[in-house]
Amino acid sequence: MKIGFAGLGKMGSQIVSKLLNAEHQVVVDQRHMENTQPLLDQGAESFTDYAELLSKLGDQPIIWLMIQHKYVPDEIDKLLEILPKDSLIIDGGNSPFKSTIELGKKVASAGSYLVDVGTSGGVWGLEKGFSMMVGGESDQIDRIAPLLDVLAKPSAAWFRFGDTGAGHYVKMIHNGIEYGIMQAYAEGYRLLKEGPIDDINLGQVAHVWQHGSINESFLNGLIEDMLKRDPEFAGVEGQVSESGEARWTLELAKELNIPTPVIQQAFDVRLASLDGEVNYATKFLAQLRNEFGGHSTTNFHSSK
Amino acid sequence: MKIGFAGLGKMGSQIVSKLLNAEHQVVVDQRHMENTQPLLDQGAESFTDYAELLSKLGDQPIIWLMIQHKYVPDEIDKLLEILPKDSLIIDGGNSPFKSTIELGKKVASAGSYLVDVGTSGGVWGLEKGFSMMVGGESDQIDRIAPLLDVLAKPSAAWFRFGDTGAGHYVKMIHNGIEYGIMQAYAEGYRLLKEGPIDDINLGQVAHVWQHGSINESFLNGLIEDMLKRDPEFAGVEGQVSESGEARWTLELAKELNIPTPVIQQAFDVRLASLDGEVNYATKFLAQLRNEFGGHSTTNFHSSK
Repeated sequence: MKIGFAGLGKMGSQIVSKLLNAEHQVVVDQRHMENTQPLLDQGAESFTDYAELLSKLGDQPIIWLMIQHKYVPDEIDKLLEILPKDSLIIDGGNSPFKSTIELGKKVASAGSYLVDVGTSGGVWGLEKGFSMMVGGESDQIDRIAPLLDVLAKPSAAWFRFGDTGAGHYVKMIHNGIEYGIMQAYAEGYRLLKEGPIDDINLGQVAHVWQHGSINESFLNGLIEDMLKRDPEFAGVEGQVSESGEARWTLELAKELNIPTPVIQQAFDVRLASLDGEVNYATKFLAQLRNEFGGHSTTNFHSSK
Repeated sequence: MKIGFAGLGKMGSQIVSKLLNAEHQVVVDQRHMENTQPLLDQGAESFTDYAELLSKLGDQPIIWLMIQHKYVPDEIDKLLEILPKDSLIIDGGNSPFKSTIELGKKVASAGSYLVDVGTSGGVWGLEKGFSMMVGGESDQIDRIAPLLDVLAKPSAAWFRFGDTGAGHYVKMIHNGIEYGIMQAYAEGYRLLKEGPIDDINLGQVAHVWQHGSINESFLNGLIEDMLKRDPEFAGVEGQVSESGEARWTLELAKELNIPTPVIQQAFDVRLASLDGEVNYATKFLAQLRNEFGGHSTTNFHSSK
């Protein structure tokens, strides 16, 4: 298949690379040539504007957006000005699901389709495969199934959870849970580090937990790596960014009157860290985000 | 090797079975014959009182206790009345680490040794191996290394984290974290179940997350099993027992002035459930405890 692709960040670049490896054709943006060039070397084509992109994609184009959610509505507006009918736009980023539902209606009224693909796996997706939570019309998802199959290889999975928005909805909850899990580990490892029993080998704790315990997890595997490398987290400042999904999860929970105390606390700890409350637990969180997402440990932001 | 073993609950029985399979000799208690008989059939010997046990173990006996923590001090007192010097007592249960440190001194002053083995893996340990967090004198742990090696097979691990008490300390924190992780999942899956997008296939959510996502974990694998079997949790009443470790973790955190908001909230949700606040999230927790620990979903208790 041949698709357009905009947004060559860490995950976007890996997605394109994986598609190229599987003999799909990808036309990528040139916003940051240092990210574009390796993909051109791998056989991608490139575009400078959407008109050029469409000229390279032919009828019924498929365009994958992998950009920050705040830019998605504008980019879709730009695309709708020139897209032919039966185009398919994929939003592979972390957009808020309510916005995705609205944008889906807008795209549909223009005669095209929006499919949302919530994507997890971080910088490990190239090797392990991306876990993908998909929403949209079944026929449209069938169109891109060959792409999703490739991206899930060798050991990940994808599934259609409902109409447009369902993918981002499941991904939002996924990330809310992730905040809570990370905070649980951060609290526990801080107690091991600063508690009354000295010199506990934290890397070995993670190793033992990763082999046969109830706390075994993908995250704890990364924790083992980072604790064995440097249990002091030298150079990590300890502010922990939040990128919106937990915030939206909490907003929804309040609308529904469903208590989410653990996700709330995990979120609040991050906000407090951005306000200066840093300690071993928040350094732990910042370093762990870096392990799976390549997120900076010295350059922070909140979704607001 | 030949050891004595008291406490043939779910994990205890599996530990003995695993030792017998590896050609070790085990002399087990007869408190509940329905648990004892299968092990006798597998080649175990049995005892009715500690005097008989000692007569079957010879010099420098090793005795593994796998009993509720509240009974441990009394059982150790009984043993100290008749144990020869250089005996080794293993506490494989979930005793509070401060009590273990004190009991260790008492046992040492009688000329014997106490080693604590915090054991995780639940009812899956027989198949996957038990993850073991060990505390005690290195020489004494060397004595039982052949047993620990067998119990960790095929894919688990064990490690000595320090002197007597260190094993239970690490296991206590392990369980505190476990409470937080479980609660994070419970909140998220409840939002998926009761949120605005209908008919999300929860079993498939767990499946996708278990394949390549950041939320992949041993617990989420069990969640996938239980959600595919019955996402409504029919017959599960929704009270969630707590067995002490999170309570002790929180007590310690307060002593140290270390915030543990997520573990606190996870604990509070369980207490509230025992007080009648039950919902989909607490049914989820009760069923999940049953998946890994064989804990009842209709018969509850608190550690107080």
